[in-house]
Amino acid sequence: MSERTSADAAGGVTVLGLGAMGTALARTLLAAGHPVTVWNRTRARAEALAAEGATVADTPEAATAANPLVIVCVLDYAAVRQTLEPAAAALAGRALVNLTNGTPAQAGETAAWANGHGADYLDGGIMAIPPMIGHPGATLLYSGSRAAFDTHQRTLERFGVAAYLDKDPGAAPLYDIALLSAMYGLFGGALHAIALVGPGEGRATEFTSTLLLPWLQAMMASVPEFARQLDTGDFDSRAATSNLAMQAAAYANLLDASETAGVDPLLLRPMGELLRRAAAEGHGDRDVPALGTLLRTERR
Amino acid sequence: MSERTSADAAGGVTVLGLGAMGTALARTLLAAGHPVTVWNRTRARAEALAAEGATVADTPEAATAANPLVIVCVLDYAAVRQTLEPAAAALAGRALVNLTNGTPAQAGETAAWANGHGADYLDGGIMAIPPMIGHPGATLLYSGSRAAFDTHQRTLERFGVAAYLDKDPGAAPLYDIALLSAMYGLFGGALHAIALVGPGEGRATEFTSTLLLPWLQAMMASVPEFARQLDTGDFDSRAATSNLAMQAAAYANLLDASETAGVDPLLLRPMGELLRRAAAEGHGDRDVPALGTLLRTERR
Ligand SMILES: NC(=O)c1ccc[n+]([C@@H]2O[C@H](COP(=O)([O-])OP(=O)(O)OC[C@H]3O[C@@H](n4cnc5c(N)ncnc54)[C@H](OP(=O)(O)O)[C@@H]3O)[C@@H](O)[C@H]2O)c1
Ligand SMILES: NC(=O)c1ccc[n+]([C@@H]2O[C@H](COP(=O)([O-])OP(=O)(O)OC[C@H]3O[C@@H](n4cnc5c(N)ncnc54)[C@H](OP(=O)(O)O)[C@@H]3O)[C@@H](O)[C@H]2O)c1
Repeated sequence: MSERTSADAAGGVTVLGLGAMGTALARTLLAAGHPVTVWNRTRARAEALAAEGATVADTPEAATAANPLVIVCVLDYAAVRQTLEPAAAALAGRALVNLTNGTPAQAGETAAWANGHGADYLDGGIMAIPPMIGHPGATLLYSGSRAAFDTHQRTLERFGVAAYLDKDPGAAPLYDIALLSAMYGLFGGALHAIALVGPGEGRATEFTSTLLLPWLQAMMASVPEFARQLDTGDFDSRAATSNLAMQAAAYANLLDASETAGVDPLLLRPMGELLRRAAAEGHGDRDVPALGTLLRTERR
Repeated sequence: MSERTSADAAGGVTVLGLGAMGTALARTLLAAGHPVTVWNRTRARAEALAAEGATVADTPEAATAANPLVIVCVLDYAAVRQTLEPAAAALAGRALVNLTNGTPAQAGETAAWANGHGADYLDGGIMAIPPMIGHPGATLLYSGSRAAFDTHQRTLERFGVAAYLDKDPGAAPLYDIALLSAMYGLFGGALHAIALVGPGEGRATEFTSTLLLPWLQAMMASVPEFARQLDTGDFDSRAATSNLAMQAAAYANLLDASETAGVDPLLLRPMGELLRRAAAEGHGDRDVPALGTLLRTERR
């Protein structure tokens, strides 16, 4: 018991994949005093970490055999397969934590494969960019083996807040993908806005600090109301302060003005279609949350 | 001079158009002690404000004649024309402030038309929803006649922060449209995220407060860096923490998982195309800000 506790406090960890994210994960563990064994397809990236105290393994199998906790963070699930299949014989009795971006279905298949080789499988979604790893603001979502999570929780907390969602390994990727969707909406909108004001000579910087960020902060306050209406199905049009028919009319100006200003409205178009459809399908006197119902494919 | 000052302190104001926004504007002026004359195409909405102290005019012309400051806030520029053309003879010597959503080109045409009838013209963009009018967080952007702005600034500040941008009347609508684009990106992303977690039984509300809003707050911190890189043209790939080739690969999972979960990825698709194009056109080792350069139509 005391062995488990001390092992968890600074136990050995294997990190497979040393891109921007894998490197940040391995560095954070090294800084916290964990013995770290690393492997990367392109060996030079592993050698760079050897100077910081990591042990470089020659193969994924050797790396996997080295420690009870094996973290894999590579480009995608094709890369996960190419990395893990040669290591299958070493997986038995390990906790395999896969922090590679993927779909819930891919997580489910990989969990079944890993379980078949005797490993506990935990899937994870990293809600952070590499410089945030190990710093406040980083959250990682986990789902799958509760035992693997409980055993290695303190190690996983080196990276940031560790949130266990569900025993279904697909839960973390689903929530990861939901949050990434929201991020790309935010980023796309901000990029379009900045393109419209015409970057150069500090204009984008000035616009962002004085107008864009305060405005996005103010508008973010509407999001909990989207959630409330979508949870309850109560889209009371008497509470609408910005009716969708009006918004559909104004939206045409966004597209028109963008084209005139030499900015391609490609990121904006689908929302215009959604607003028009909402107005045409009888939601014109409702507010933004009602658009959420149109996103369910079974409703079309 | 003292007359001008006291007139501005609580001078008479005409409000043409009493939808959700016009009503909020008129109410805010009434609450601040301004004599307010109102007109609305559908008279019942004006009568409702009479009970709060507004004077109801029978025609746009009579309403316009009543006060030196005339605010128009109707659905769109077609409605602006239908409202103002019958009032043209009364415009001379007035300040006309148009808070209707429109394009810079529409603002320019309306300014020329109003000037031709002897009015000072100010175009405005309301960066607020109606319940925010007169409360902290509301900002209104103005452009056009500096004289009209200076004369009526204190009245306009009843609605919120009044920011004068430029003598070109198209400046406020351009910035308005930029900010609305960013808002729709944020809203669309949030709606897609909420749809993915499957609203009901408080799930969307819980997801929004515990994960979505903190995540969007954390990601908002990246936006100033977009502005900096787009201002300077310095897309140094050594500073990239999330390279676009990786993001293009992960993005395919967003589309795939959405479809599997029964959520139409229509709002997500164009960003996927942009990421693929960025990777194909040699930006694969750069980060998100480089996407901004692909939005300029002259670059395609
Ligand atoms: N960076 C972020 O902001 C961020 C945030 C959250 C989640 N993630 C996720 O973390 C994962 C890694 O991202 P990253 O930023 O580290 O990407 P990256 O810097 O592009 O690194 C990609 C890594 O995948 C490896 N790889 C690619 N194809 C492979 C294959 N066929 N077999 C074995 N290894 C292969 C690469 O090895 P080589 O060195 O040999 O090319 C490299 O180690 C992705 O799933 C990403 O979605 C990233
Ligand atoms: N609500 C917001 O969140 C918000 C925020 C910023 C800016 N805005 C802008 O403010 C303006 C008004 O929005 P709103 O929310 O007040 O919309 P709304 O509640 O739908 O009201 C529309 C107003 O336009 C009038 N109108 C429509 N067609 C007309 C015509 N042909 N001739 C004369 N009047 C006509 C309507 O008169 P009837 O009563 O006779 O139909 C009504 O007064 C829009 O340009 C909008 O983009 C709104």
